Amino acid sequence: MVEDTSSNWRTIFNFESRSRRVCTFCEIIQGKREAHQVFRDDYSLAFLDNKPLFLGHTLIVPLNHYETLQDLPRETIGPFFADVQLVARAVEAAIGSDGSFVAINNRVSQSVPHLHVHVVPRRHGDGLKGFFWPRTKYQSEEDAEQVARQIKDKIHQILNTKK
Amino acid sequence: MVEDTSSNWRTIFNFESRSRRVCTFCEIIQGKREAHQVFRDDYSLAFLDNKPLFLGHTLIVPLNHYETLQDLPRETIGPFFADVQLVARAVEAAIGSDGSFVAINNRVSQSVPHLHVHVVPRRHGDGLKGFFWPRTKYQSEEDAEQVARQIKDKIHQILNTKK
Repeated sequence: MVEDTSSNWRTIFNFESRSRRVCTFCEIIQGKREAHQVFRDDYSLAFLDNKPLFLGHTLIVPLNHYETLQDLPRETIGPFFADVQLVARAVEAAIGSDGSFVAINNRVSQSVPHLHVHVVPRRHGDGLKGFFWPRTKYQSEEDAEQVARQIKDKIHQILNTKK
Repeated sequence: MVEDTSSNWRTIFNFESRSRRVCTFCEIIQGKREAHQVFRDDYSLAFLDNKPLFLGHTLIVPLNHYETLQDLPRETIGPFFADVQLVARAVEAAIGSDGSFVAINNRVSQSVPHLHVHVVPRRHGDGLKGFFWPRTKYQSEEDAEQVARQIKDKIHQILNTKK
């Protein structure tokens, strides 16, 4: 029992100290790490991705450390995504692109565990496959309806928990 | 002059009637086209993508017809992305996934010209390359700073126009 507790505490302690120590984006926000910043307000900081898909590829991060989109408090969603919209407009205008790709990786493929929205300028024929990855399909309408029902049930559960 | 005007009117008329006629998502919203719906409120409708990347791949669309993220009115950004957050939570919980991919194609790679947010459940090792496409780099710090400045300038322009 003593060992278990000790081990749990170690895990919690290590997790906290590790996530605090290594958050690259918190360091950029705190001015401890360089970045080519393009915008900052009370909610967000935007800066160039240093390994861009295309030049002008920008990241927007909330100033507070939230790991994923799901962790963003309700009251900051509006201001934060208004900043994302602003940056998307500005990136397209600055680069003179035909469009943009706006994306969030939650946990899987997420390089830094601090919510960040990618804004990537796009041109027609730029070779970025985007959503042209192989697609799959539902075996039947019933299969699709079953998946839809599972998601619907979870939405009800989440909304009822909030009340 | 008469011809020009007439031609302009034809263009406007054709554009309007065409975009109204062919908007698949408006048809789904209006109940004229089938979809496996999972959520609807005063701002958004969410339904299964019928060619999913992975089962459970869901699209969220604003009820009003806006073409891109940039067109979404400021006052609807909060409620709309709160719905996106809700759907991301529900999709992950329903599918039991390790994470999710949330993405918007603005114009380029955008199959339907009605803003739609993809919520794709992800698993570690699911083979979806996501952001592992070939990356490029800035030739120098000065190159990066120049691009950052262009975006910064556009942000100032946009913010000053609003005032």
